[in-house]
Amino acid sequence: MAIATLTTDWTRHDFYVAALKGEILRRNPVAAIVDISHQIPAFQLQGAAYVLRGAFRHFPEKSVHIIGVDSEPTPKKPIVAVSYLGQYFVAVDNGVMGLICDTQPDAVVTIDYEDLGNGFNALIPFAKAAAALTLGEPIESIGTPKPSVNHMPMLLPVLDASFIIGNVIYIDTFGNIITNITRNEFDRVAKGRRYEILIQSNRYKVKTISSSYSAVEDGEFVAIFNSAGHLEVAQNKGRIASILNLDMSSSVRINFFNQ
Amino acid sequence: MAIATLTTDWTRHDFYVAALKGEILRRNPVAAIVDISHQIPAFQLQGAAYVLRGAFRHFPEKSVHIIGVDSEPTPKKPIVAVSYLGQYFVAVDNGVMGLICDTQPDAVVTIDYEDLGNGFNALIPFAKAAAALTLGEPIESIGTPKPSVNHMPMLLPVLDASFIIGNVIYIDTFGNIITNITRNEFDRVAKGRRYEILIQSNRYKVKTISSSYSAVEDGEFVAIFNSAGHLEVAQNKGRIASILNLDMSSSVRINFFNQ
Amino acid sequence: MAIATLTTDWTRHDFYVAALKGEILRRNPVAAIVDISHQIPAFQLQGAAYVLRGAFRHFPEKSVHIIGVDSEPTPKKPIVAVSYLGQYFVAVDNGVMGLICDTQPDAVVTIDYEDLGNGFNALIPFAKAAAALTLGEPIESIGTPKPSVNHMPMLLPVLDASFIIGNVIYIDTFGNIITNITRNEFDRVAKGRRYEILIQSNRYKVKTISSSYSAVEDGEFVAIFNSAGHLEVAQNKGRIASILNLDMSSSVRINFFNQ
Repeated sequence: MAIATLTTDWTRHDFYVAALKGEILRRNPVAAIVDISHQIPAFQLQGAAYVLRGAFRHFPEKSVHIIGVDSEPTPKKPIVAVSYLGQYFVAVDNGVMGLICDTQPDAVVTIDYEDLGNGFNALIPFAKAAAALTLGEPIESIGTPKPSVNHMPMLLPVLDASFIIGNVIYIDTFGNIITNITRNEFDRVAKGRRYEILIQSNRYKVKTISSSYSAVEDGEFVAIFNSAGHLEVAQNKGRIASILNLDMSSSVRINFFNQ
Repeated sequence: MAIATLTTDWTRHDFYVAALKGEILRRNPVAAIVDISHQIPAFQLQGAAYVLRGAFRHFPEKSVHIIGVDSEPTPKKPIVAVSYLGQYFVAVDNGVMGLICDTQPDAVVTIDYEDLGNGFNALIPFAKAAAALTLGEPIESIGTPKPSVNHMPMLLPVLDASFIIGNVIYIDTFGNIITNITRNEFDRVAKGRRYEILIQSNRYKVKTISSSYSAVEDGEFVAIFNSAGHLEVAQNKGRIASILNLDMSSSVRINFFNQ
Repeated sequence: MAIATLTTDWTRHDFYVAALKGEILRRNPVAAIVDISHQIPAFQLQGAAYVLRGAFRHFPEKSVHIIGVDSEPTPKKPIVAVSYLGQYFVAVDNGVMGLICDTQPDAVVTIDYEDLGNGFNALIPFAKAAAALTLGEPIESIGTPKPSVNHMPMLLPVLDASFIIGNVIYIDTFGNIITNITRNEFDRVAKGRRYEILIQSNRYKVKTISSSYSAVEDGEFVAIFNSAGHLEVAQNKGRIASILNLDMSSSVRINFFNQ
């Protein structure tokens, strides 16, 4: 059974999500539709990309991942379908696909839309693309080839010989902060040296990266590489983001020591 | 695969929604169950009707739409199953079906329930009706014919030769306000004339109805007819309901000018 | 079609729930996955048990119920699969299964996990167990037998000849309070006598247990035995928990009168 997943900032209160599910099921009644999240903060492409990057690899091959964040298409930001790492993605090409793909996708096509003047122009093209791809139609047959997806400038961590400065890119529902520092980047700079992790200021430090939240006592701060490979800082059974008043503009600095 | 959708004020925290899904699947293991919303404000029939009116037309024919809002049946407000526009609806007949059906439904039947004294008398009748209808049983076989659904007095917009006064019937999760003024009513009064839309007072005006939110700059107010055909007023990338302190008692007035 | 249900404190914002759904569907593409709740308050085993106890009996036989609350396994709290009342459960053995099972389960097995050092060690074992059980594999084949599930000390109501003192174990989304007093316990002590229910203090009383919320006028307090068999106190169309400032530490006392 072919799978279509949904990651949107449409929330669950309204009928947008349901309308899309209905239109997909009209075209492919046996599609299995899986909600990834409908609570991406509005227009937060980086948050959407973080959540979907963490989820999509867990799905069967040829699953179709629909991204409805900042989802009104324009001539400069058309609707695209993308084939990448054996999975399909359907989104408005507003930069979110550039955040998801680390390498050049296998195929990108532009999908036509009609301006219905109702603020929801993506509905039918999203549903048609998802239905066609879950029914096994080749991606080339559903749109016009496009050389690549759009990229947006994004915050990357600053890497130096003796430090890394990263940023908070997501705050999860436990109040844990997720940074843009990955395990690869850490390993490249750390080279096995001793380090300290400063959270926002010199005042709050973590001196080791643990393998689980419960490696520290309840109430203490703990750093781990999460299952998406990102450095995450948490308070065991607490909410570090609230306690230290952290938000998406907060920074995390790792200092490395030569002895 | 037959589809049952759920629109309730039961929220997702509790087990009511899950219990209903389980009882449907016990009776029809291949029913595809789609959540429309479980966050209808408690007892808000107008909100439930707005959300479901926006969603149900997008579903395949003969889908079954269960409405669990103000869902404790009484002798005066029995459980009904309704056939309307090629779709089925199951609800307590508290007026919500009257808000959904613009014309006389094709069939209405009353469904028996047992008073279990546990505050959830609708569970088994809802599940039985949904299972029977998704299994293809005729609606006449699952209940006793009833001439029509109950109607409740509802707020209609006031139409005059030179103005329309409408009300907010829903505030969506972007803080956009949805009014009870439809495109049909607007066209009938407007007759191509110039107009201004006053939001709650003379102070906040929109002078044109756009075809998309992004027709205006970020932060500006924008009016559109949404995909449900209702006049909606939004702030591009903002929350007009919070900024202007609007709620379900707020009004919107459209003045038309003869020259 | 075999069913897997999910009850977690992972919320819907993040990708944990989606990752688990994907990993189940990779192993059993026709599993029907039903969300029970992802909004269990973090680490609240009693809340999770209350919600799942209310839901699981409504599902078809051999459904698999996954509980992701306090879900990081440790050597003392391994992952277990449990067969109980014709249904399967998969959870970390942190005491939650002890709260769900009133009697000795039919089978308990321990399931191996690998320490991936990413704070989400339960993902693959949960998915493998759910896929195997929904595919019909016998529970004995997926783990090592364990004599029983772990039990945690839990708050039980105090029963006396002339009174019962219970506690709030859950506050539902209508603000109704659910207590740990069951209908069985009430009947055993009451023996048909007159009674009064004191909510937190002597000041707020309910003198009868009704069979539905609407047995009292809007705004009045009402006590019922809910569909899970627990004594629940509500305000008809109001939020008793907010009005009386009740929380999980609040108590409810029932006094019985001999004449």
